Amino acid sequence: MNQLKVDLSNIYTQVAKEEVFALKTKIAQNQLLLEQGTGKGSDFLGWLNLPSSITKEQLYDIQHTASELRAKSDVVVIVGIGGSYLGAKAAIDSLSSSFTQLTEDVLPKIIFAGNSICEDYHAELLELLETKRYSIVVISKSGTTTEPAITFRVLKQHLERQVGKTEAASRIVAITDLSKGALRKLADSEGYRTFVIPDDVGGRFSVLTPVGLLPIAIAGIDIVKLVEGARKAMDDTSSSVAFDQNPACIYAAARNALYQKGKKVEILVNFTPRLHYLTEWWKQLFGESEGKEGKGIFPAGVDFTTDLHSMGQYIQEGERMLFETVLSVEKPSHRLVVPDDPDNLDQLNFLSGKRFSEVNLMAQMGTIAAHSDGGVPCISISIPELSPYWVGYLFYFFERACALSGYTLGVNPFDQPGVEAYKRNMFALLGKPGYEADGRKLREKLGL
Amino acid sequence: MNQLKVDLSNIYTQVAKEEVFALKTKIAQNQLLLEQGTGKGSDFLGWLNLPSSITKEQLYDIQHTASELRAKSDVVVIVGIGGSYLGAKAAIDSLSSSFTQLTEDVLPKIIFAGNSICEDYHAELLELLETKRYSIVVISKSGTTTEPAITFRVLKQHLERQVGKTEAASRIVAITDLSKGALRKLADSEGYRTFVIPDDVGGRFSVLTPVGLLPIAIAGIDIVKLVEGARKAMDDTSSSVAFDQNPACIYAAARNALYQKGKKVEILVNFTPRLHYLTEWWKQLFGESEGKEGKGIFPAGVDFTTDLHSMGQYIQEGERMLFETVLSVEKPSHRLVVPDDPDNLDQLNFLSGKRFSEVNLMAQMGTIAAHSDGGVPCISISIPELSPYWVGYLFYFFERACALSGYTLGVNPFDQPGVEAYKRNMFALLGKPGYEADGRKLREKLGL
Repeated sequence: MNQLKVDLSNIYTQVAKEEVFALKTKIAQNQLLLEQGTGKGSDFLGWLNLPSSITKEQLYDIQHTASELRAKSDVVVIVGIGGSYLGAKAAIDSLSSSFTQLTEDVLPKIIFAGNSICEDYHAELLELLETKRYSIVVISKSGTTTEPAITFRVLKQHLERQVGKTEAASRIVAITDLSKGALRKLADSEGYRTFVIPDDVGGRFSVLTPVGLLPIAIAGIDIVKLVEGARKAMDDTSSSVAFDQNPACIYAAARNALYQKGKKVEILVNFTPRLHYLTEWWKQLFGESEGKEGKGIFPAGVDFTTDLHSMGQYIQEGERMLFETVLSVEKPSHRLVVPDDPDNLDQLNFLSGKRFSEVNLMAQMGTIAAHSDGGVPCISISIPELSPYWVGYLFYFFERACALSGYTLGVNPFDQPGVEAYKRNMFALLGKPGYEADGRKLREKLGL
Repeated sequence: MNQLKVDLSNIYTQVAKEEVFALKTKIAQNQLLLEQGTGKGSDFLGWLNLPSSITKEQLYDIQHTASELRAKSDVVVIVGIGGSYLGAKAAIDSLSSSFTQLTEDVLPKIIFAGNSICEDYHAELLELLETKRYSIVVISKSGTTTEPAITFRVLKQHLERQVGKTEAASRIVAITDLSKGALRKLADSEGYRTFVIPDDVGGRFSVLTPVGLLPIAIAGIDIVKLVEGARKAMDDTSSSVAFDQNPACIYAAARNALYQKGKKVEILVNFTPRLHYLTEWWKQLFGESEGKEGKGIFPAGVDFTTDLHSMGQYIQEGERMLFETVLSVEKPSHRLVVPDDPDNLDQLNFLSGKRFSEVNLMAQMGTIAAHSDGGVPCISISIPELSPYWVGYLFYFFERACALSGYTLGVNPFDQPGVEAYKRNMFALLGKPGYEADGRKLREKLGL
C-alpha cells in the first residue's frame, strides 16, 4: 500500500501491547499540547504547520535561486552546522546516486563545510576551490556561530579574490534571521540574496524551511514534491487521526514503552547506504530533543547489511539495553538481478535471477527475526520508495513523532541548553571578549 | 613528545584511580595469556606478531602489485565486508585529502563495494564503471560470504565483457585462503594474482595483512612506514612494559573500570573528519570482540565539533551511562590561520591570526571539561600526527588494548558467534540448499 507503515509485531517479546497502548491517552493530550501551542517550548512550534504554510511563491523563489546558482557553479559550498546541514545532506544523499562525486557530468557538486574547525579540511577545501567555479550558501541564524562563521570568513575572502567583490556578492546566498544578527547585517550591506529562518523554528526542525530546501533544490531535487509529501504526513499524523491509525503516535508510544523497560539505546537501521545521513539527521532530532535532565534514549545508527559485519555481533549478543527501528524502503530505484554462473564455485546459484532487492529484503527479515529472538525488539517503519515525496514525508513524520515522544518523556523537546557548555569553555580558553573571568578559572582548573 | 599518550585525568570524577589500578594484576595476567597463547580463542592470535613477522619481501610484493594496479586503473574496486574493508578504509581516509573523490588528478579512485546488498548501489556502480578503466581486489577467506560474493560475481562478468577474459584476469587480485575455499579455487583456475589471509588472523584484526595493506598501498600510502609504526606499538604494549607506562594496559583497565561503574556506552571522539572511518573500524574491533554473553561496552562514535551540534546535547545532559575516549592529533598536515576582518561583524577578530588547529584544540579542551563536568568521564588518547607511521601504531595499539580488555571482561575476544544468526535466517528465507527445514519453520513463524 502507498503509505508509511509502522509495525510493532517484533517488540512484543519485550513489552506488552497493553503497555504500549497505555500511553494512548497521554499521547492524545500531547497532540493537543502541540496543536494548541500550550506545551513546553511552544515558542518553537513553527515547524508544525510548515508544509501547509509555505506558499507556491516561496517555493518558486527558492527554485529560481537554485537554478541561477546551478547555472553558474561547478561547486556549491553549503556553510552550516547541525540542523543547518543535516537535513539537506540527508535529503540529497537519500535521493542521489551513491557516485555523484565521481560522476563528472553531475554538476554542481555539493560540498558541506562550516561544520568543523579542522585545519586540514579547510586547507584542502581552499586548494580544491582554487580551480573551481563556485558559489556559497551560508546558513546561520546569528552569523556568529563559530564553525560556520570562521569558514565563511575564509571562503568569502577567497571568492572575492578569485572573482572580485561584485561577482562574489552575486554568488553568495545567505539564509539567516529576518532582521537581526551579524549575517543579516553583512548580507544587507553586501547585497547578498537572502532567505529567512523563521524565529519559531529550531535548527533540527528546519529542513522544510529554506535552510533545507535551497540546498536540496540546488542538488536538482524536486522540492515541491518533497513539501507535498510532508503535507501528507502532516495530515496523517494530526490529532484528528486515531492513535492506532497514526504512525507518529504509534512510534512515539512504542519507543517510550521500550525506554520504560530499560531499553536505553535505539538503533535506527537501514538496508540502503543512501539513508546514512537521514540516520544522522534523525540522531540529532531525537538526541537533542530528548537527551536532557539525565534521561532520554541514546540514538545510534547502522547501515545494514554492511554493519551486520561490525556491529551485528554486539546487537545479537551484547548488553540487552538496545532496541532497533528498521527503516525500510519497499521499491529500489534501479533493477538488477544476480546473474547465473554455470561453475557456481561461490554456491550462489540459488540466488540466480533473483533481484538484489529480494535478497536484501530476506536479509532484512532474517535480521529482524534474529535480533528480536536475541532480545532486541524491533520497530519496523516502511515507505514505498526513496522519492522526494517520501523523504519529505519522513522528515515531517519523524519531527511529529519526536515532539510527541519528548512530551511523553516529560521534557521540553525544543530546547538544547547543554549545547552551550562546550562553547562557553572554548570561548573562555580562546580569550573571547566577555569571557575573561571564565578563562582565568578554567585555565587554572586545567593547569594551563 | 613523539609518542602515543593516554591521559586518565578526566575520568577520576566518576571512578577512583585505585579502581583502575586494581585491574593491574589481571591485565598483567592477560598479557601473558596473549603472549603465551594460553587464553580463550588462542588459535586466533596471528595478529599479535604481524608487525615483526611480515618480511620485506612480502611488503615489496604487495607494493609491486599495488603499483601495477595503479598504473592500469582509473578506479580500483575493493570487494569485501567487515574486517575486509574497514581497516583499509580507515587508513585511506585518515591519510588522504577530504576531497580526493572530487580531485580529477588523484588516481586511481578507490571504491569499496561488496559490503551491502543494495540494488541501487550496485546498479549505480555498474553504470559508473561502464566508462572507467578499472581493476578489482576481492577479499574473502571463503569466497562464499554473500555480500562480497554477489558483488564479485556481477563485477567479474562486467569486467570480462568490457575487456575480455584474459585482460580481466590480469586486473583481478584475490586475497583469500592459502589453499581452501571457493575464491582460492576460482583464483587458481582463472590465474589471478593472489595474497593469503592467514588462518590465525580474524577479520577485524587483519588490517596488517594483505587484506588491509594491499588496498592501502593502492591508494598510494607508504605501507612500510605503517608497519613500522605498528612494530613500535608492539614494543610499547608488550608485557615487558610496566602497566603504568603501557598505553594498551592503561586504556584496557580504564574502560573496564568505567564499565563496572555502569558506563555502558563508549563514544570514540575525534576532532578531524578524516578519522571517521578509523572510528568505524574501532567500533567493529571492540563491539565484535566484547559484545557477547549479554555484556560488553556499546561502541559509538562522533566527529566533533560537527556532532557537538547534533549529539552534544545528549552527551552533556542525557542518561549518565556514557564515557568518551577522545582521540586527538597534535599536529595538522596543513597550515591555515583565521584571517582578520576590519568590519568584524561576526565578532571573530579575537581569533584573527590564530591557526584553525589552535581554535580546534581549545574546542577539544573545552569539550572535555564540559562533558566531564556533566558526568561523562573522558579518556584522552593523543598521537603526534596523522601519518602512515601513526595510523599503523594506532591499529596495533587498539588491537592489543582490545584483546586485553576482552580478557579482562571475561569473554573470548576473538570469536563472533552472533554474526551467524541473521545469515542462517536469510539463507533459510532464500531457500539455500541445506536450509529447507529452517526455511519452513521461519516462514511459518513470520506468517509468509
